Amino acid sequence: MPFVKIEVTREGVTKAQKQALIKGVTDLITEVLNKDPHLTHVVIQEHDLDDWGYAGEQVSELRARGITADKK
Amino acid sequence: MPFVKIEVTREGVTKAQKQALIKGVTDLITEVLNKDPHLTHVVIQEHDLDDWGYAGEQVSELRARGITADKK
Amino acid sequence: MPFVKIEVTREGVTKAQKQALIKGVTDLITEVLNKDPHLTHVVIQEHDLDDWGYAGEQVSELRARGITADKK
Amino acid sequence: MPFVKIEVTREGVTKAQKQALIKGVTDLITEVLNKDPHLTHVVIQEHDLDDWGYAGEQVSELRARGITADKK
Amino acid sequence: MPFVKIEVTREGVTKAQKQALIKGVTDLITEVLNKDPHLTHVVIQEHDLDDWGYAGEQVSELRARGITADKK
Amino acid sequence: MPFVKIEVTREGVTKAQKQALIKGVTDLITEVLNKDPHLTHVVIQEHDLDDWGYAGEQVSELRARGITADKK
Repeated sequence: MPFVKIEVTREGVTKAQKQALIKGVTDLITEVLNKDPHLTHVVIQEHDLDDWGYAGEQVSELRARGITADKK
Repeated sequence: MPFVKIEVTREGVTKAQKQALIKGVTDLITEVLNKDPHLTHVVIQEHDLDDWGYAGEQVSELRARGITADKK
Repeated sequence: MPFVKIEVTREGVTKAQKQALIKGVTDLITEVLNKDPHLTHVVIQEHDLDDWGYAGEQVSELRARGITADKK
Repeated sequence: MPFVKIEVTREGVTKAQKQALIKGVTDLITEVLNKDPHLTHVVIQEHDLDDWGYAGEQVSELRARGITADKK
Repeated sequence: MPFVKIEVTREGVTKAQKQALIKGVTDLITEVLNKDPHLTHVVIQEHDLDDWGYAGEQVSELRARGITADKK
Repeated sequence: MPFVKIEVTREGVTKAQKQALIKGVTDLITEVLNKDPHLTHVVIQEHDLDDWGYAGEQVSELRARGITADKK
């Protein structure tokens, strides 16, 4: 009976990326925990950049200064 | 001191339905746990159909194929 | 596809009370939103009294001073 | 590794107030728990007044009757 | 800046399974969203069987009747 | 009507530290948002080190290698 929530900043996540996350997490749980996927729900929740703070600063401010969350 | 969150897909839940959920859950908790209702908060959070996955698929895709969550 | 979380202080909630909450919330959602109950999950999460703060004070301290959350 | 979520009703919280909350909570955790702020994330989530219930009533209804959440 | 929470019933999930979930979800998010993994936190939260309700019944009761969540 | 949840790893947070977090967050919200503190609830939730993953690794493994979350 897993319930998974993925919270991310709202920065242009596409419908296809969301589907890839949903499918990937559900498959992972099915494989690792042997759970029936019909009992697994995955919810993606996006937050505006003013609403997410990292190290005490709004992400909107970090982005304005050119600081991204991209993999190096 | 209860806090209740109800997460559902965004599919036309009306203001009256929300009020019925809030009233119903608060009354239930008052009755079962004998809690002062002034300490009970209930929050309803709706998620877009692209953001909710069930059994590895976006609900938007399930609905497009005619699969609903309606009680049979 | 509802997911409901009920967070309360850990103050002797019995198994039967938990079942009453689970049954009551599921029935309410089925009735108000016409949802298939097989898509509704309800989770009860208890928190120790040191971990819940109300009006700036730990509930453990409030209880020690005789302040309860009981319905009047 | 702290993660903090602040849930409030959507009633005109400004970007500057959000920044003050993010900075204040991060500083508090750094000071009290001695945590590296680069591991602290703070998320603010606003809920519409129809979606938040207090004592069994929608906040939208409470506000319409002149009942506020303001400090006295 | 993703934060992921995986909620499951407490039914003997091992440390190695938890590590597999953490690694798998982090890799998935890095790959799909191109996020720096040093900004991704994954939390696994287990709930006792009396605390999780499905279709209006406690999972402890479902398990006692031989109903599992295993993949068929 | 704020509800705040602070999630941290379980690494010896004392009752006094919890009280300092609860008081500090409640005061901050009262000051920044002018909210009546009797409507503010703060919950602290600790997670075992095996249950929290950072950058794809369990915190229990990071700690075993001498990597802390302490402020430098």
